[in-house]
Amino acid sequence: MLQGHQTWVFDSKPVISGCAAVGGPFESNSALADDFDRLNEDLWLGQDSFEKAEKKLMEQACEIAIKKAGTKKEDVQFFLSGDLINQITSSSFTARTLGVPYLGIYGACSSSMEGLALASLLVDSKFAKNALAATSSHNAACEKQYRYPTEYGAQKPPTAQWTVTGSGAALVSQEGEGPRVVCATIGRVVDMGLSDPFNMGGAMAPAAVETITAHIRDMRLELSYYDLIATGDLGRVGHEIAVELLTKHGISVPKDKFTDCGILLYKEDQPVFSGGSGCACAAVTTYGHLVNRMKKGELKKVLIIATGALLSPMSYQQKESIPCVAHAVSLEM
Amino acid sequence: MLQGHQTWVFDSKPVISGCAAVGGPFESNSALADDFDRLNEDLWLGQDSFEKAEKKLMEQACEIAIKKAGTKKEDVQFFLSGDLINQITSSSFTARTLGVPYLGIYGACSSSMEGLALASLLVDSKFAKNALAATSSHNAACEKQYRYPTEYGAQKPPTAQWTVTGSGAALVSQEGEGPRVVCATIGRVVDMGLSDPFNMGGAMAPAAVETITAHIRDMRLELSYYDLIATGDLGRVGHEIAVELLTKHGISVPKDKFTDCGILLYKEDQPVFSGGSGCACAAVTTYGHLVNRMKKGELKKVLIIATGALLSPMSYQQKESIPCVAHAVSLEM
Repeated sequence: MLQGHQTWVFDSKPVISGCAAVGGPFESNSALADDFDRLNEDLWLGQDSFEKAEKKLMEQACEIAIKKAGTKKEDVQFFLSGDLINQITSSSFTARTLGVPYLGIYGACSSSMEGLALASLLVDSKFAKNALAATSSHNAACEKQYRYPTEYGAQKPPTAQWTVTGSGAALVSQEGEGPRVVCATIGRVVDMGLSDPFNMGGAMAPAAVETITAHIRDMRLELSYYDLIATGDLGRVGHEIAVELLTKHGISVPKDKFTDCGILLYKEDQPVFSGGSGCACAAVTTYGHLVNRMKKGELKKVLIIATGALLSPMSYQQKESIPCVAHAVSLEM
Repeated sequence: MLQGHQTWVFDSKPVISGCAAVGGPFESNSALADDFDRLNEDLWLGQDSFEKAEKKLMEQACEIAIKKAGTKKEDVQFFLSGDLINQITSSSFTARTLGVPYLGIYGACSSSMEGLALASLLVDSKFAKNALAATSSHNAACEKQYRYPTEYGAQKPPTAQWTVTGSGAALVSQEGEGPRVVCATIGRVVDMGLSDPFNMGGAMAPAAVETITAHIRDMRLELSYYDLIATGDLGRVGHEIAVELLTKHGISVPKDKFTDCGILLYKEDQPVFSGGSGCACAAVTTYGHLVNRMKKGELKKVLIIATGALLSPMSYQQKESIPCVAHAVSLEM
């Protein structure tokens, strides 16, 4: 049910009965490589376009998540998915492969938690027994759509981020073993007037802060309640801004427990500028690394805040600043 | 709760407490002109791009829908919206204007019923008191994105359709006066191998048929149960294919009660080829004309099946056929 202004509390605590993280060649050398279910050596995944390669990543993640849950796709009632490609074709084409009733979503890099929140809502309110939430991104497909074709070799400032090649999927179920989804806070669109496509972390930080603030207000708790709080795609630059803003709002930030998926994912010597980003960033980190740590008993209560820059190349062509949104999901083992 | 494989039955029958249809200059001459809440004489709506004009249409529709419900935006918990522009910027920018927690969706022209279904689910399961669902399309913004810039004057075959300039919004509430949402059937992606962007109706007809078939199976009823059954964007060509396919599947089609929003909306002498289409097509027809007829007592039970071609210009550049999806919502007065 609704608690406070914008938080859904799931009384039945739906379970993530199976989840999967898959990645590309760059992710094979990442800090969290061991937490992936599958790593692909070929950036093309044997396909003739990067977009089709991205679809293939999502198909892999969905297949593995369903398998790990010990079920089959015929028992999945709904598939909720979104990605960064125009018309979210990775999601739609995967929905065609799966043949499961499909709800397309779009929240840019916040899509992972938007999908997980909606899937949990469907299961909690008995509108589904099993709902599959997925998202994906592909470095080469995104770079050419949102910035410059990679071949241009355009230089990037240190605030830029590296789009993750990968896909994450989670099967949310009424029954099963795994982390449970406690609640979700749906964010408002926040726009602080930033328009630099090479500083998405900076643009998205205020949206993350807005949603975190709403979450602790609606749930009447402090951030220290959690063993780990991870934003989605802020990178180092955005993360620092988020810490500053939260502190300014009078919110006590447990710095040793507050991190970002875009910082966690890659090694320090990988050339990712400020950190990782892309729809897959929060998804692979959550459904690989964080869920694994929860299962090992290292983490009990985790809050993930995926942040999305709802920009289009159009927004800066049209001299518009970038509207951003963040959705938070709380998991418990 | 879930009934059958893919239908959500809303026990509380959430009410459409306020809804609105707005249009552009071409819609001012349409067959349903009198059913619009607002018609704009200027295709640009005073903006400097067609994309911003589309956002303006959506802002108008949302504002009017909230006003007609006799409430204010502070009482709306969630805004669910999608459109055809890359990164659904019309929706995201409207979400910024509204300042209401936002869930972006993408179902191409099926977005209207995807949003209405999800908003009804939120309200029925007590995760929201009021949820606003909206969608929009703009003829000039869509034509240049999906086909050829209008200035090229490219000739079109008779199977082509006319993208509606407009926006429709509905406020779904726990309390209020208006048509009630009885149930929704979420569709699977269907792809019959068609790849002609000038015959979307033909590509989408099988998806409409798939969802109608699922709906009557899950709800254990016949199509004659309804006073009117309206598909969203099939136009004349797609509509005929849908009738044929349903008949072939052994489903009795009450032809006098089975129509399409893309046929209803425009006059026969308007140059719309096979009929209207675009996210706004089913939205303005439902939230204007159909709801008005329900309120007058002319229609009691209505089934709307919005159909979306989840194509991208990429799908045919990449020699892919077009995956399609349809979602059905049943209304009752």
